Amino acid sequence: MNCILLPAVNFHNESAYINAAAQIEHVNQVLGAKVGDTLKVGQLEGHLGSAVITDMTPERILLGNVDLTTAPPPKLDLTVVLALPRPKVLRRLIMDMTALGVRDIILINSYRTQKSYWQSPMLNRLDEFVLEGLQQGIDTAAPRISLQKRFKPFVEDELAALMTNRAIIAHPYGALSFSQYMQQQLKNAESPQKVLPSMVFVGAEGGWIDYEVEMLARQGCQAVHIGARILRTEAAVNAILGQWLL
Amino acid sequence: MNCILLPAVNFHNESAYINAAAQIEHVNQVLGAKVGDTLKVGQLEGHLGSAVITDMTPERILLGNVDLTTAPPPKLDLTVVLALPRPKVLRRLIMDMTALGVRDIILINSYRTQKSYWQSPMLNRLDEFVLEGLQQGIDTAAPRISLQKRFKPFVEDELAALMTNRAIIAHPYGALSFSQYMQQQLKNAESPQKVLPSMVFVGAEGGWIDYEVEMLARQGCQAVHIGARILRTEAAVNAILGQWLL
Repeated sequence: MNCILLPAVNFHNESAYINAAAQIEHVNQVLGAKVGDTLKVGQLEGHLGSAVITDMTPERILLGNVDLTTAPPPKLDLTVVLALPRPKVLRRLIMDMTALGVRDIILINSYRTQKSYWQSPMLNRLDEFVLEGLQQGIDTAAPRISLQKRFKPFVEDELAALMTNRAIIAHPYGALSFSQYMQQQLKNAESPQKVLPSMVFVGAEGGWIDYEVEMLARQGCQAVHIGARILRTEAAVNAILGQWLL
Repeated sequence: MNCILLPAVNFHNESAYINAAAQIEHVNQVLGAKVGDTLKVGQLEGHLGSAVITDMTPERILLGNVDLTTAPPPKLDLTVVLALPRPKVLRRLIMDMTALGVRDIILINSYRTQKSYWQSPMLNRLDEFVLEGLQQGIDTAAPRISLQKRFKPFVEDELAALMTNRAIIAHPYGALSFSQYMQQQLKNAESPQKVLPSMVFVGAEGGWIDYEVEMLARQGCQAVHIGARILRTEAAVNAILGQWLL
């Protein structure tokens, strides 16, 4: 937790309060903060800044001198379409994509997604994981997250409206490497930043099946690989999205 | 587990056996394999290939037609010097660095490393985490791992012998971005692959303190950042090392 994000309702003029148990615990246990100490705070969907602790009880921490003047960092111009992973790894994936600044996240069904994943109670906790990611990455603007339980109707009927001319599928058996893809795109452009894909499809454990890759390719998505090594979904997402940070 | 790695002692001519509980469970529960099925196998520090199940008991799976003809993928020309992280994340970090193909891993003390981390029983399980990483990344060659409990003597007395002219410190407050660093290096070279750093220092939660960055800089390490966003150690390691894969 590199900053403490509070909803707008917790602010009033130059005062604010923290009442979420996890945040109170962080202030006490990790920061060891006391009355008079300054905290890094932010307003959800608002600005970042600082505030001073004026009172502490076990249920509520009062803040004064609230000063929110720093705009959050820009979002990445990027939609990640992720095959719904095992619930166990969903929390960290949502946190990491949020901390990295992904603007849109679409969780989609795939052949290798087990049906039971869609019943997981973790799917009701996405807002909590997003908050963790924002507080990690020091951002206030939540990514948009949508769930697509049916792959084929989404790809055939809805994808065209969302697609740009630069969509890739992360696929260990793609013919092109990511860097070859970027070199192709760079031929007519001045900077790598301008030709980074704006949509990336990432499979879960086991990746996409050929049928899915072919269906996406018909919509204009290019399969690219990042080497012969097979990575955990989390590691792969971070290794790929690292390209947008540099 | 994308392949099953066995020690040399488990092989004899064209036969081999699996006797590790985790591997037997994987063959039964995840692969649902039966006598006559072919498995992807490899020999630790040897080659990769396939074998056919000839007999199965709860304690042992016998393999025949063992055919190991594929060399493991090349290691990355890279040493990662990692501030010893919380034991909870050590397993995944070692797994991921191994799966990514890092050749040398040095776990080092830092100002923000808690002393108790060095007493963690997880440090006795590094071989196990390496095996998981190799089986994930489909590789047979373990990275070399060393522990350095004292930062200053290591940096002042031992680092010079290990250093190359391309060592970086991942540091959110570095003056240069990774891509600016690469552009500088590229001026006199033909391809990005040839100027990738061969040593990367990565801090744990909270990163390096100024004193540590300065001490490393005196040895010729360049502090570089990958953007304003602060990532979890695991996410940061994968986002940075993703540069070596592309």
